[in-house]
Amino acid sequence: MAGFNVRTVLVTGANRGIGLELVKQFLEKPNPPKWVFATCRDPEGERALTPAPHPHIIPKPASSTDTASIKAAATRVEEHLKGSGLNLLINNAAIGGNGTLESETLDDMSLVYTTNVTGPLLVSQAFLPLLKKAAQGSNQKGLSCSKAAIVNMSSEAGSIQNVFIWHLGQAIAYRCSKAALNMLTKCQSLGYEGDGILSIAVHPGWVQTDMGSFMVGTLLGEAPVTVDASVRGILNVLAKLSEKDNGAFVSWEGKVLPW
Amino acid sequence: MAGFNVRTVLVTGANRGIGLELVKQFLEKPNPPKWVFATCRDPEGERALTPAPHPHIIPKPASSTDTASIKAAATRVEEHLKGSGLNLLINNAAIGGNGTLESETLDDMSLVYTTNVTGPLLVSQAFLPLLKKAAQGSNQKGLSCSKAAIVNMSSEAGSIQNVFIWHLGQAIAYRCSKAALNMLTKCQSLGYEGDGILSIAVHPGWVQTDMGSFMVGTLLGEAPVTVDASVRGILNVLAKLSEKDNGAFVSWEGKVLPW
Ligand SMILES: NC(=O)c1ccc[n+]([C@@H]2O[C@H](COP(=O)([O-])OP(=O)(O)OC[C@H]3O[C@@H](n4cnc5c(N)ncnc54)[C@H](OP(=O)(O)O)[C@@H]3O)[C@@H](O)[C@H]2O)c1
Ligand SMILES: NC(=O)c1ccc[n+]([C@@H]2O[C@H](COP(=O)([O-])OP(=O)(O)OC[C@H]3O[C@@H](n4cnc5c(N)ncnc54)[C@H](OP(=O)(O)O)[C@@H]3O)[C@@H](O)[C@H]2O)c1
Repeated sequence: MAGFNVRTVLVTGANRGIGLELVKQFLEKPNPPKWVFATCRDPEGERALTPAPHPHIIPKPASSTDTASIKAAATRVEEHLKGSGLNLLINNAAIGGNGTLESETLDDMSLVYTTNVTGPLLVSQAFLPLLKKAAQGSNQKGLSCSKAAIVNMSSEAGSIQNVFIWHLGQAIAYRCSKAALNMLTKCQSLGYEGDGILSIAVHPGWVQTDMGSFMVGTLLGEAPVTVDASVRGILNVLAKLSEKDNGAFVSWEGKVLPW
Repeated sequence: MAGFNVRTVLVTGANRGIGLELVKQFLEKPNPPKWVFATCRDPEGERALTPAPHPHIIPKPASSTDTASIKAAATRVEEHLKGSGLNLLINNAAIGGNGTLESETLDDMSLVYTTNVTGPLLVSQAFLPLLKKAAQGSNQKGLSCSKAAIVNMSSEAGSIQNVFIWHLGQAIAYRCSKAALNMLTKCQSLGYEGDGILSIAVHPGWVQTDMGSFMVGTLLGEAPVTVDASVRGILNVLAKLSEKDNGAFVSWEGKVLPW
């Protein structure tokens, strides 16, 4: 990861799980970012970000389903950056759920879609000027995560081809939302390539977090991948991405996944 | 289409466009279905179904975003069928839209998703007992549209691989919704195969309807495919589907499309 020099990164849903581990591992890098913006929807609540205060972490409240709070977070990030841009936006926040074809409801379909697809769209809209600024201010050719990138945390459960771990749970609302997020990622890759911004969908593995454990239920023991291993893998993959990967769907191990 | 013997079919969004033409062509078949249930959300309004009353058409009010109206329609269809089942459910109703990565809003994302994905899910839930009844009452082996099937009208615009006619319009909410509908179709194919029900996603072509023309704008002339040709193609394709096609994404010309 020697060449992975991200000056500024923002992670949503950073108070626990994969989001929190991303923040930690960015800070442990030999060359940590100057700014790590870690957003969570309830920075004062029980599940607030634990390692704050830290010189490199700027927690920002932002619910990814509330346009006003997203815009407010973008404004405050911009104030901190004093004219420089945002290199890396990681849309990590999401919710799960295990509704079946028979039990899934209108309300659940709407909530999961708004959180997992519309949220990343609105967050990307709000931070786009700062991503463009980072791309414009960079002297790197091509596309990369060190220059300017949108990383959407997707899931192999959203691969229409693979329908990952269907036997463990139908999770209809969740699967539909992640397939739609993959489409959003593809659209962002087409729309923002000309601005020097890379867009990518990442499957973090089946990971030992609250969400990963919920999918397992009680009978099957643990999810196979530790949070530590997943995030190490993801950072390795992000470090190597270039314009040829724009708009792809990759796993934490660097495998290209089918839509 | 000699072997395509559908006794009972239901088409949503049947008052205009592709839905209306489906109803017409089913009735023109040498062996028309005994029952063609044509639902539309406003059967008394300006855009009501025009060929009704007709001996084979039973119009039913149903907005695909309103659970109560869907359930009421299913109850009334069941009353008509007097103990027999529904062979073919065509989830055709949908809305378009041409929001861009920058202009797309929370409200538009929600409305398009609810109509184009949650609608087909809820309609399928409500008619599932009648589809199962048709499958159980059939002496055909395997899966087919004559036996019991859910046809979800999708779009190549929802192919993450192809991102059909991106240069003409980003249509973010629409593309994301159709990718999610493809995932729903795949899930239905896995969930209902054991019940003898086939599930399929169909791209009708780029068709001369209100929706197809909206996508064209004014500069480019007409959409390439007439409603008549599209629906003739679709009926030909449906007639030939079997268990090997379960969960696939096919065009009106019978081509398998990539997710
Ligand atoms: N774990 C797995 O096995 C797995 C597999 C495939 C993909 N993923 C994906 O990886 C990402 C992270 O998952 P995880 O396992 O770390 O999940 P997690 O442990 O359940 O954490 C989810 C995070 O998202 C936040 N969040 C949820 N809704 C939000 C909203 N409306 N606004 C702002 N933040 C919100 C949560 O905040 P609160 O604490 O406030 O709820 C939390 O910080 C997700 O996109 C998930 O879909 C996970
Ligand atoms: N035309 C194309 O080029 C094209 C290409 C690819 C895919 N498709 C798909 O083909 C299908 C039919 O499209 P079309 O071209 O015939 O569209 P259309 O001419 O715009 O007709 C849409 C139909 O859906 C109904 N509808 C919309 N929202 C509804 C709701 N909430 N509840 C009930 N009905 C609702 C409309 O009813 P109202 O009259 O009440 O509005 C109308 O009957 C759609 O799934 C579309 O996505 C079309």
